[in-house]
Amino acid sequence: MLTFAQFGAGRIGQIHAANLAASGGTAIRYVVDVNTDAAKALAKRHGAKVVDVKTALADKGVDAVIIASSTVTHADLAIASAKAGKAIFCEKPIDLSLKRVDACLAAVKKAGVPMFVGFNRRFDPNFKALQSRIAKGDIGAVEQVIISSRDPGLPPLSYLKVSGGQFRDMTIHDFDMARFLLGEEPAEVFAYGSCLVDKAVAKAGDIDSTMIVMRTASGKLCHINNSRRASYGYDQRIEVHGAKGRLMAGNMTPTTVELANGDAVSADKPLYFFLERYAEAYKAELAAFVEAVTKKRKMPVGAEDGRMALVLAEASLRSHKQKRPVKVAEITGGAK
Amino acid sequence: MLTFAQFGAGRIGQIHAANLAASGGTAIRYVVDVNTDAAKALAKRHGAKVVDVKTALADKGVDAVIIASSTVTHADLAIASAKAGKAIFCEKPIDLSLKRVDACLAAVKKAGVPMFVGFNRRFDPNFKALQSRIAKGDIGAVEQVIISSRDPGLPPLSYLKVSGGQFRDMTIHDFDMARFLLGEEPAEVFAYGSCLVDKAVAKAGDIDSTMIVMRTASGKLCHINNSRRASYGYDQRIEVHGAKGRLMAGNMTPTTVELANGDAVSADKPLYFFLERYAEAYKAELAAFVEAVTKKRKMPVGAEDGRMALVLAEASLRSHKQKRPVKVAEITGGAK
Amino acid sequence: MLTFAQFGAGRIGQIHAANLAASGGTAIRYVVDVNTDAAKALAKRHGAKVVDVKTALADKGVDAVIIASSTVTHADLAIASAKAGKAIFCEKPIDLSLKRVDACLAAVKKAGVPMFVGFNRRFDPNFKALQSRIAKGDIGAVEQVIISSRDPGLPPLSYLKVSGGQFRDMTIHDFDMARFLLGEEPAEVFAYGSCLVDKAVAKAGDIDSTMIVMRTASGKLCHINNSRRASYGYDQRIEVHGAKGRLMAGNMTPTTVELANGDAVSADKPLYFFLERYAEAYKAELAAFVEAVTKKRKMPVGAEDGRMALVLAEASLRSHKQKRPVKVAEITGGAK
Amino acid sequence: MLTFAQFGAGRIGQIHAANLAASGGTAIRYVVDVNTDAAKALAKRHGAKVVDVKTALADKGVDAVIIASSTVTHADLAIASAKAGKAIFCEKPIDLSLKRVDACLAAVKKAGVPMFVGFNRRFDPNFKALQSRIAKGDIGAVEQVIISSRDPGLPPLSYLKVSGGQFRDMTIHDFDMARFLLGEEPAEVFAYGSCLVDKAVAKAGDIDSTMIVMRTASGKLCHINNSRRASYGYDQRIEVHGAKGRLMAGNMTPTTVELANGDAVSADKPLYFFLERYAEAYKAELAAFVEAVTKKRKMPVGAEDGRMALVLAEASLRSHKQKRPVKVAEITGGAK
Repeated sequence: MLTFAQFGAGRIGQIHAANLAASGGTAIRYVVDVNTDAAKALAKRHGAKVVDVKTALADKGVDAVIIASSTVTHADLAIASAKAGKAIFCEKPIDLSLKRVDACLAAVKKAGVPMFVGFNRRFDPNFKALQSRIAKGDIGAVEQVIISSRDPGLPPLSYLKVSGGQFRDMTIHDFDMARFLLGEEPAEVFAYGSCLVDKAVAKAGDIDSTMIVMRTASGKLCHINNSRRASYGYDQRIEVHGAKGRLMAGNMTPTTVELANGDAVSADKPLYFFLERYAEAYKAELAAFVEAVTKKRKMPVGAEDGRMALVLAEASLRSHKQKRPVKVAEITGGAK
Repeated sequence: MLTFAQFGAGRIGQIHAANLAASGGTAIRYVVDVNTDAAKALAKRHGAKVVDVKTALADKGVDAVIIASSTVTHADLAIASAKAGKAIFCEKPIDLSLKRVDACLAAVKKAGVPMFVGFNRRFDPNFKALQSRIAKGDIGAVEQVIISSRDPGLPPLSYLKVSGGQFRDMTIHDFDMARFLLGEEPAEVFAYGSCLVDKAVAKAGDIDSTMIVMRTASGKLCHINNSRRASYGYDQRIEVHGAKGRLMAGNMTPTTVELANGDAVSADKPLYFFLERYAEAYKAELAAFVEAVTKKRKMPVGAEDGRMALVLAEASLRSHKQKRPVKVAEITGGAK
Repeated sequence: MLTFAQFGAGRIGQIHAANLAASGGTAIRYVVDVNTDAAKALAKRHGAKVVDVKTALADKGVDAVIIASSTVTHADLAIASAKAGKAIFCEKPIDLSLKRVDACLAAVKKAGVPMFVGFNRRFDPNFKALQSRIAKGDIGAVEQVIISSRDPGLPPLSYLKVSGGQFRDMTIHDFDMARFLLGEEPAEVFAYGSCLVDKAVAKAGDIDSTMIVMRTASGKLCHINNSRRASYGYDQRIEVHGAKGRLMAGNMTPTTVELANGDAVSADKPLYFFLERYAEAYKAELAAFVEAVTKKRKMPVGAEDGRMALVLAEASLRSHKQKRPVKVAEITGGAK
Repeated sequence: MLTFAQFGAGRIGQIHAANLAASGGTAIRYVVDVNTDAAKALAKRHGAKVVDVKTALADKGVDAVIIASSTVTHADLAIASAKAGKAIFCEKPIDLSLKRVDACLAAVKKAGVPMFVGFNRRFDPNFKALQSRIAKGDIGAVEQVIISSRDPGLPPLSYLKVSGGQFRDMTIHDFDMARFLLGEEPAEVFAYGSCLVDKAVAKAGDIDSTMIVMRTASGKLCHINNSRRASYGYDQRIEVHGAKGRLMAGNMTPTTVELANGDAVSADKPLYFFLERYAEAYKAELAAFVEAVTKKRKMPVGAEDGRMALVLAEASLRSHKQKRPVKVAEITGGAK
């Protein structure tokens, strides 16, 4: 039985808690949230107690933590959890500041605790199959990766203002996916960002439409396109081109029903957004974390992966602002 | 809180129990199975007690029963449950004998208890959407229905021998689906049955490949094709043709991944069999039962539906044996 | 250079003439049509002369004829052409009367001339690929064939009245396709016919919606569904189920363009009707005829194929009228 | 009757000649080619005479020319044809040197003759439908365009060496398509080029795999990915994202046949290469040229379009070499 303290009782926290409850072999002992009503409701549902961070981490019976609170608290909670010797499941991003991420990673490393970063898309059955089949050699050496990742609609401007911007908030998933599929680190990034969806986004200092190209040292190429608004739903598709073929993963739909009439042959729109599309992925990532902790295995997505995705976001942001390609080593402080 | 006694702790019983457990608002108080090990295991998992039928039905605190035991026990358990005033969820078929089905229905009617027959496919998101969209008028008046329903592989011969034959065991789902979608009762049936998959099936007195056509009083037409073996998995597709268009529901696949190489462009095979394909349907049918009992609503699939599907199976069997179209009224004893 | 006389300068005649003109190695010397304006126009376009039947057939320099005149004239023209020693390309059907078809076949046989019947669908790239891949063993032994064949809209009632009825006029193509794909002659037929599209059809003594099932001696099964009206265009799909897999041929569309918006993901309707869908097939069948004549090879679709499709139409009509399955041998006069 | 002189009797020349012959209303009077055997063969097939350039252009009866000779001759032939007052259909590219293209355009402008540049893909039914539907407002304002354009295999190295490089030879089609669909000129280009397919390409000074991003003045974004080798055939797909939806045009296949077996559900690979995929486009572009000349209408793709596509290729090449985004105005000499 793996015993958890959970930080954060909001939407994504509730999903993780429900998946833990259904998975068997785990228990949530504590729920912590500044919103005490939310904390109480979630605690009640899963037979947990509402406590503060200190109490939760002081309990030696707690094996692991889920950090699903607001982004600004992630790094501090991870550092405190690491010091308390807990295995850490942390929602992405670890932090919006690379410096703080580095501090967090240092603390985790020092404590020797395992840390998992919630890049749920690696556990999506479709994208996971892409990676497995590449690894199996279905398409030979990977040459080009094309990631289309488009949200159904703009989040509230209030959210955008604290989000860290489109590259850090939205594209960060795609940067992780690129690393997952390329099999080689991107060495250089070029990014175009535009504000095409809503001028209010530009006023808030952000962009809503981006196209990125990246290149690895050996010349592999990757393209990412993002938009904050896809009127037809959540567009999440990936193509991988290799020496011996092409793998594509398409969208998922609520049903397979198709209507043919005098106008067209029409099928369902994609599933609406991440809660629907990645429901299986959320289950699978938590199961992977539990299994890795229980069997003392290497984390399938670790703290360093969380850091590298942020590095690529930083490189993209610099590219966009300075209107030039940016070497990843510029961000990491490596040789240029 | 709706309290259940569950009869049958085998594969399908375990699915129903797990779905009940996850649904909230319900509890399984008793598990009954002649296989006491299976009963104990299931009871333990869900905090229930292992008892005999009599004890389970005598408990006034039990509101409803799930009958998921072997087919030969369905009718007796349903009759006893009806007499005990329990709401009944009964796996299909109610019985292989129309006479016994009629006896069961009489008992249920007399007792005034609600009875649900587990035609899970009506709750498949795809087929449910077909029916909703027909009802919404998407294709105008229904004219023709085509049901392709093909199992991945032959069941064991030992099963075939007690199954009641392909029409009663396998096609019965398709007969129910035909009724669900046609919006009018089939009035006449013609059936061809062949043994093409394995000669052992013919030796066992059964068939493994069938093609059926049915006609309603107003002339609507329905075709069903069945095979006990589809090498590519579970083939479950339906077309409905109406005055204003065509609706089709296709197979479901494990992923949306597609490989293009020097040979072909290849996608996933359909989900392997009913447990995978109809996982959502099993959840939804039980939820529908619980809701109908709780809110005292009409059962969405009732005992009479269980009977009518068997009537069409009987008509098909007679058609196949006597090599002629058979009027449904011949079976029900109505006017010819 | 293969020299042709062409009978019939209407729509289908113009297609054949244009395909001949574009194919190279052939010439149209004569055009014959009771509609002299049409004959003159077609003759002018292809540098041919307008003459009467007698003149055309008397010319020793004419190697072959195309019979694309009205159905009632087919048999007489084929008999006269056979007597004149011409190779015959005859549009389907040879005749609506089996007796006259037999007379025609006898004349052709006596004359020893090659005769091709225009079952163009065998030359459709999709259906041709189905047959080739069955022959190659892609799906093992064929077990079931399902043919969906639905016209975009009702023809004029004036046409329906002389068409010979839906089985002889429309389903005849599907009967030929069934024979082409089953690899074994249907031995028995059961047919339901309804009037669902337009009551005027019933008044004219015909039906507009049919479902047919056929069985071969070894138990292979075939289903055909027809409708005179598919609001979304020309629906021409075939499934073949074999011991080792399933082959399907779908509809063709004008473009591959797909629109995703807030309503649905929509693709093109199928190509509108036979002229569009079977444009390639018309070219290919004529090329096959020319090649078979030139290289003195067996006709890929011969007079006997024309006859057998009509036999199945007759069996279906009798089944529909007498409400019973009809053995093919009843029609051919063979043993029952 | 529009009378043509045709320069070039090679593969693409033969296609244009055959399409002219089949179109009606046109005649090829002269064929010119340094390969006299090829010239004679083509002239014979179409009833033309083999002459030299001077003779062909001196004939006042010649209305128009088709320039389908080797790339190095295009500009000179176009200039000479312009001086002779002929309407010009010129294969792409006009020239590999922007300076010579400008000289050619000046001559054409001075002569006041119409000039068409053979960007055949604008006439592909799929891509044409994309553009028409954008124009019709199906997806609102265009925001992002994604062009995937991948050849089945490397051309001979001998060809690569005189091709002008991948941007000028291959991507040039995609640059034209981007302009066709964006509805606004690209203002800046960034290009990554790699040699991933065959190291011999790098030795020859070229690249074989590219990813390009472009931005218009208003911020619209476009991505192009190219590879000289797609093991599954000719990959020609486009996505256009607008404010109200997404349009996609997919590949075309030889048949719609699909095989399901124990391994997968497999469909046809895309049509092999440009001759197959763009057969309809070649016909349609020539018909458009003939119609524009005959009806004295504006050319649907003119000399300036040929120039602008080359400008984008030059900008990409400079971006690739100088590792920075390049403003289009740098190439055209406009303001920066």
